Amino acid sequence: MERLPGFRDFYPEPLPHTDVWSADARQFVFNHWRETARRYGFREYDGPPLEPLELFTTKSGDEIIGQLFDFVDKGKRHVALRPEMTPTLARMVAAHERNYKKPIKWFAIPQLFRYEKQQKGRLREHFQLNADLIGETDPAADAELIALLIDTLRAFGLTAEDFVIRLSSRNAWQSFFESRIQNPESRVEKACEFFQIIDKLERTAPEESEKKLAVLGIPLAQVNEFIKSGKPTVELESILQNLTARGLRDFVKIDYQVIRGLAYYTGVVFEAFDRKGEFRAIAGGGRYNNLVKLISGGKVDLPALGFGMGDVVLLELLKARGLLPKFDSTMDVFVLIEDENLRGISLKLVHDLRAAGYAVDYPLTLAKPDKQFKRAQDLKVAHTVRVESDAYVRVRKMKTREEIVAGFADAANHLG
Amino acid sequence: MERLPGFRDFYPEPLPHTDVWSADARQFVFNHWRETARRYGFREYDGPPLEPLELFTTKSGDEIIGQLFDFVDKGKRHVALRPEMTPTLARMVAAHERNYKKPIKWFAIPQLFRYEKQQKGRLREHFQLNADLIGETDPAADAELIALLIDTLRAFGLTAEDFVIRLSSRNAWQSFFESRIQNPESRVEKACEFFQIIDKLERTAPEESEKKLAVLGIPLAQVNEFIKSGKPTVELESILQNLTARGLRDFVKIDYQVIRGLAYYTGVVFEAFDRKGEFRAIAGGGRYNNLVKLISGGKVDLPALGFGMGDVVLLELLKARGLLPKFDSTMDVFVLIEDENLRGISLKLVHDLRAAGYAVDYPLTLAKPDKQFKRAQDLKVAHTVRVESDAYVRVRKMKTREEIVAGFADAANHLG
Repeated sequence: MERLPGFRDFYPEPLPHTDVWSADARQFVFNHWRETARRYGFREYDGPPLEPLELFTTKSGDEIIGQLFDFVDKGKRHVALRPEMTPTLARMVAAHERNYKKPIKWFAIPQLFRYEKQQKGRLREHFQLNADLIGETDPAADAELIALLIDTLRAFGLTAEDFVIRLSSRNAWQSFFESRIQNPESRVEKACEFFQIIDKLERTAPEESEKKLAVLGIPLAQVNEFIKSGKPTVELESILQNLTARGLRDFVKIDYQVIRGLAYYTGVVFEAFDRKGEFRAIAGGGRYNNLVKLISGGKVDLPALGFGMGDVVLLELLKARGLLPKFDSTMDVFVLIEDENLRGISLKLVHDLRAAGYAVDYPLTLAKPDKQFKRAQDLKVAHTVRVESDAYVRVRKMKTREEIVAGFADAANHLG
Repeated sequence: MERLPGFRDFYPEPLPHTDVWSADARQFVFNHWRETARRYGFREYDGPPLEPLELFTTKSGDEIIGQLFDFVDKGKRHVALRPEMTPTLARMVAAHERNYKKPIKWFAIPQLFRYEKQQKGRLREHFQLNADLIGETDPAADAELIALLIDTLRAFGLTAEDFVIRLSSRNAWQSFFESRIQNPESRVEKACEFFQIIDKLERTAPEESEKKLAVLGIPLAQVNEFIKSGKPTVELESILQNLTARGLRDFVKIDYQVIRGLAYYTGVVFEAFDRKGEFRAIAGGGRYNNLVKLISGGKVDLPALGFGMGDVVLLELLKARGLLPKFDSTMDVFVLIEDENLRGISLKLVHDLRAAGYAVDYPLTLAKPDKQFKRAQDLKVAHTVRVESDAYVRVRKMKTREEIVAGFADAANHLG
């Protein structure tokens, strides 16, 4: 029996050679995500992986259904596995925001699901760090969130030479667009169209973009000129100054090519890329000041912004840059049981060492001494300990082969 | 918009008063589960939350479908949200067991899903610690796993006065049954029926059990006598001796009333209960020596055993025993910004302190000094730090109100 296409098994290392994702690497990533969020004062939350379908269509329209794992449950509810976290967050915040002081700084590490067209290596699930800041309109909030994004990547050992945050603004493009559209009535509907052309600019032949822009009465040359100028808006300038004060200026650049396809962004938007351009976006986010109001049916209106960082591209990048440690063993001590008469007291020793915080293994059943020693070597333990009598143990430091005989109760003091 | 019935939102604390589950409490539980598993040398794995339906029906028969979130996906595959982890584990082990030395000691913390009949407080998802030991038939393996279960509960501060492991054996009941059944041909089919009667004994009126047992030709009195005797089998005796050697004897008792309903158990079975009998089972498990073979279609045959411990009963028990800590703040330092001219350098300070590992917050925008101080108090920080000039900061210890003026780069040294 096989697992479903696009889903991953997470094995402990050493991995079966047919797989690339280990549970250890995943936990390594999660630990760094949590630790950086903690330093920034972001609190963890989570919601259900299964939500009413309506939660997602309210935000993204019915077109999203084609990309979802959706179904009708036994209670006749149309439900879906979550493809993103933001609608759940908006729902949760809208329901209980009075409980929390603003600004709300929250993060989550959800597993997300999309029914993507089946292609080699294309996944249908991934884990994503979601960090959001709710209840503050000032660009200082944008800067705080972008700083968190930068420091999250830095926590893995990535530097300004490895990645850059491309910083842009929906507002800048909105102004650009409005100053070039004559008929104010068509501004709203056309703006969406315009944003989508800009979003696809990098991946589209210039002639095609030119043709599409011409329909809106906007010359491609002006668009290119605007991108090239890279002149920060007042808002972006404020963010740059804030990040400069933190010593993080080298990690960002203004890049108006970034606009983020999703219609719901309302202000500053950004994406993190590896400098060499080998991978897809590492992370992306921006302001979505209208979403909480939309999801709550108008009951709660709070400005918000956030970003998402997936585990897949990040792990690929860390691997490529040699920043993934080896996870082959977590064992500290192997207790050798060479005399079955001493098994009882050896089990006591195992238990005491574990109680003292050490990761300890031992032969479950009768085994030859050389086989036991081989096992200790395979596990890369720092020490072996062997009970010599009721009162004494022999501690061996594997690296130096030094041996010490110590009192039974004193064994843990020789494992430094 | 509301979440689905039977699913939980996990908020950061302080919780909205309508909810009982916090993300902090959940993480507290997960951290203890991981830490104890590490000490016992169990490695983490995970599989997909969505699996082919067949994986679960192969193990449990088609009757399980009525309790599943199952559906046909866009690729016409009949799939289900996992109701338990063991079939996934068996699939993963069977696929790559050659990669790993035996015995395999693995754990996972999956979220599991069941479409239960809707009742007040009845959940349709929970998280479960799954620990399994694969590749060893000796009772030493059972003892190792039961010791892990005991020490996992002890890690939360629970003692032998709080909980007990009720230890039983399918083999004991099998012998009991076989010695009383005349017709050997009906043994296999009737055994299953017999096990189910025993499983329901505690919750069934004696007259009803008596009637059902009579059909099999077994007097209830003999069953009760067998339970009362509590005489350990050779296998159970070996486990008791092993646990005694570790100093864990007080945490277990022989109790043949436990048999575990699931048909796939093959040997020792056990359940953990609170001593006061206020809650449902905290954990349960046992040997399932045939499952890997069944799931792998006969390709891989490995003995195995494991247990599952859910987060719901455990959290209820910890709460009732006063063993859940408060999680109201994780912040270490609040940086006061009382002069906006010093915002830039204050942001640098925030960044430096975070880089040094401290959890730091600060006012994102202009705020009155008393409001800032109030915020610092709400966050229960140990220290506030205020930039006095380009070169100096003022560190205030909140508990003692002591203040120290320190060099800018020296601030972190005064946060001890």
